[in-house]
Amino acid sequence: MRDIKPLIAPRSIAVIGASANPTKSGGVLFHNLVNGNFKGPLYPINRTAAAVMGVRAYPVLADVPEKVDLVYIVLPRQHVEDAIKQCVAAGARAACIITAGFSETSREGRADEERLRAIAQASGLLLAGPNTIGMVNAEVGMMGSFVNFPRWEAGGVSFFTQTGIFTGAVMLSVMSAATQRLPVGKSIDVGNKVDVDELDFLNYVADDPGTKVIGFYIESIRNPPAFFEKAREVRRSKPIVVLKPGRTRAGAAASAAHTGSPASADAALDAALRQHGLARAEDEDDFLNALRALVMLPRPRGRRVAIATTSGALGVIATDLVVEAGLELASFEPATLAAMRSILPEWLAPANPFDFWIGIDVKGPREAHETGLAAAFADPNVDLVLCTLLAPGNADFAEFGELMRRLRRTYDKPVAMVIYGGEAQQRWTADLEGVDVPVFRTTRAGARALSLLVQATL
Amino acid sequence: MRDIKPLIAPRSIAVIGASANPTKSGGVLFHNLVNGNFKGPLYPINRTAAAVMGVRAYPVLADVPEKVDLVYIVLPRQHVEDAIKQCVAAGARAACIITAGFSETSREGRADEERLRAIAQASGLLLAGPNTIGMVNAEVGMMGSFVNFPRWEAGGVSFFTQTGIFTGAVMLSVMSAATQRLPVGKSIDVGNKVDVDELDFLNYVADDPGTKVIGFYIESIRNPPAFFEKAREVRRSKPIVVLKPGRTRAGAAASAAHTGSPASADAALDAALRQHGLARAEDEDDFLNALRALVMLPRPRGRRVAIATTSGALGVIATDLVVEAGLELASFEPATLAAMRSILPEWLAPANPFDFWIGIDVKGPREAHETGLAAAFADPNVDLVLCTLLAPGNADFAEFGELMRRLRRTYDKPVAMVIYGGEAQQRWTADLEGVDVPVFRTTRAGARALSLLVQATL
Repeated sequence: MRDIKPLIAPRSIAVIGASANPTKSGGVLFHNLVNGNFKGPLYPINRTAAAVMGVRAYPVLADVPEKVDLVYIVLPRQHVEDAIKQCVAAGARAACIITAGFSETSREGRADEERLRAIAQASGLLLAGPNTIGMVNAEVGMMGSFVNFPRWEAGGVSFFTQTGIFTGAVMLSVMSAATQRLPVGKSIDVGNKVDVDELDFLNYVADDPGTKVIGFYIESIRNPPAFFEKAREVRRSKPIVVLKPGRTRAGAAASAAHTGSPASADAALDAALRQHGLARAEDEDDFLNALRALVMLPRPRGRRVAIATTSGALGVIATDLVVEAGLELASFEPATLAAMRSILPEWLAPANPFDFWIGIDVKGPREAHETGLAAAFADPNVDLVLCTLLAPGNADFAEFGELMRRLRRTYDKPVAMVIYGGEAQQRWTADLEGVDVPVFRTTRAGARALSLLVQATL
Repeated sequence: MRDIKPLIAPRSIAVIGASANPTKSGGVLFHNLVNGNFKGPLYPINRTAAAVMGVRAYPVLADVPEKVDLVYIVLPRQHVEDAIKQCVAAGARAACIITAGFSETSREGRADEERLRAIAQASGLLLAGPNTIGMVNAEVGMMGSFVNFPRWEAGGVSFFTQTGIFTGAVMLSVMSAATQRLPVGKSIDVGNKVDVDELDFLNYVADDPGTKVIGFYIESIRNPPAFFEKAREVRRSKPIVVLKPGRTRAGAAASAAHTGSPASADAALDAALRQHGLARAEDEDDFLNALRALVMLPRPRGRRVAIATTSGALGVIATDLVVEAGLELASFEPATLAAMRSILPEWLAPANPFDFWIGIDVKGPREAHETGLAAAFADPNVDLVLCTLLAPGNADFAEFGELMRRLRRTYDKPVAMVIYGGEAQQRWTADLEGVDVPVFRTTRAGARALSLLVQATL
């Protein structure tokens, strides 16, 4: 087992291809490293400039006065091999090749990539890429991506990907949201995965105190037995969500073209994921939603769901989605049903899904939500709560955030929240910031997130 | 075939239970009718007040100086039957019973509901409800819902539902969105569906010039052979999307509890929907997305999709989702591939999914999108285009909206747009207003919407 810390948490970084031009990848990446306040020394490598963004530059890596931990390579394809040789000669510990155009594109590119791998392996140089958007580690201030992030919510989620979107534009969307931002401390895109792989990463994050939840976007697994053996151990304390496309034949072919790795056979991989307790996301939204649930919520004790709703239709829709996601509807205890009955007219019997809209008319919005939701949370047969709430003016009340905070603290059960309505929808969502209640945009997203939470933790 | 115009497009409305109290359903509903600028006379019926919201009130319906088309009944359960008798005696043509607590709750409620049905049928009074949120018809200014709508985007979508959410809080969310609002001209919730049903509605909207696209939320179909015969005829000019939950056993049980109607057997209904060319949505988001696609997009000529993307990973993810949604990947013509090649480095061969991110580096964002997207749209083998685009700063360009407008007009092919990124994501989305390009929040939503478009129109 080798230590990939120089790649993920370097103490010093050089950038071969650093420039001051903000329209070039090498320019954006270097800007990000400077503006992200990287905690160690930064060394732009540039044949002509004396300084880049005010940082002293060196013509070649060998001129840098220390052995650097990590070298980013942002050069045209034909210059990459020389840069890797410079890294080896200068005693660098790791390199991240941003440049694309290798095994994902042609036989010639594959041969070039094989040579890079051989050079790195012979010397012990850790390699990420080629064909990567870069790497972020907020703990050390490394914003090593060629996409510019005005805001980044750091935290306990660590990503390992064979693609740039979770260190790029999708994360821009996530981080631009006014609420419910996913706290991602580390996002490592290894692109074509020529060297450092998912198992190296797993070994690293297993002992990384900053990592609480792990997300993988992978198109292949290099050594499945070793990976799953380690994953089964790690997931006991750090749950794991995997997004692996290529479920269909066409998707598998597209996957092979994307990263140059042959896609793993899907059925076997799917079975192994389930067997070892890793949650499998179906698409990018599913993936991010599952991680948000895992960051915010406790481990459930089972898979029995209470659906608490102020919409009969959303209750029915949620029932289908919960069952299809592999969860069960909880059976409420008599005491629960009695508490629920107390906010309903005498002619209406509560059930699961529990629709208490009419309780708003009977008891007013605050008491209806307080009693109705508390009953669902309190029931010993309920492991998870899916709330689909309507927030038109007549259902609105000021204490919504406070109520959810109390329920979340008192019962410590996983809950997924879906809110529909106009102005109050925005306000209720804002009031849940800091309350550790994940809010989802659709009933399906909420049901799926709870299901993936169960898969990753039970 | 009877004419339900007095119910859906009444010339005059009375409200039994109208009040000035904005915390009561009868208050909100009457406020909405007044503030919605209903085009005909409004008659609040109130035993004590001389006027409600400045509108002259009458103690009982019989005092109103004309035979009204439609009477809303917003009274406690025990007074509903008397109100219906008043409607019959006064010669009203239709009644909408907002009040809940009938067949959806108890055997006694079912018996009460049966009596209402008998009274209505004997007299020819059209009935909607009980247990409904009300009805909206923007054409005549009837905002007959007990949820208050600050904004309502009127247009060619007509809803028939057995639930309130599409005349209530979900529509509040839709109408509160800054962009991509669904234009709903009519939203008729019949609640427990004691009388007027989906076939009556279909007969009405078939000849309604304001209806372009039809959405059903149904939990049962009263007369399937007659409904499907009519639906098959109507969908040729007005596509139909059906949201019918109860796919699972638990969902079917929840459905029966929700509206008091036994849920239709799902497998048979699903087969009938497919056979007759009605699209079936899986949940509320799927439903609204499909309708948005149908409103904005032309009829596709086939099911062959081009995936045009600036994210390799989203291209792979989209491939799975497109195939799983029952669509096919198009094979590009040599001329298309040549055009695509012109924006890529020589070592990269285009395919479907077509990932042209690197073209942004090669040609700049404007030319890469212009050439790349035009090639996908122009190919004669492409029936639909799914675009998943990244909009970080280095991919941004000012002419995005103009480009999409031109492509949409030139090729007249259905397109679904998914955009990820920060500030530019918002701006690109805003620039698509009025361009008839539906924007979806996730790759799955885009793929599903195209699939439902095909189901509803091919």
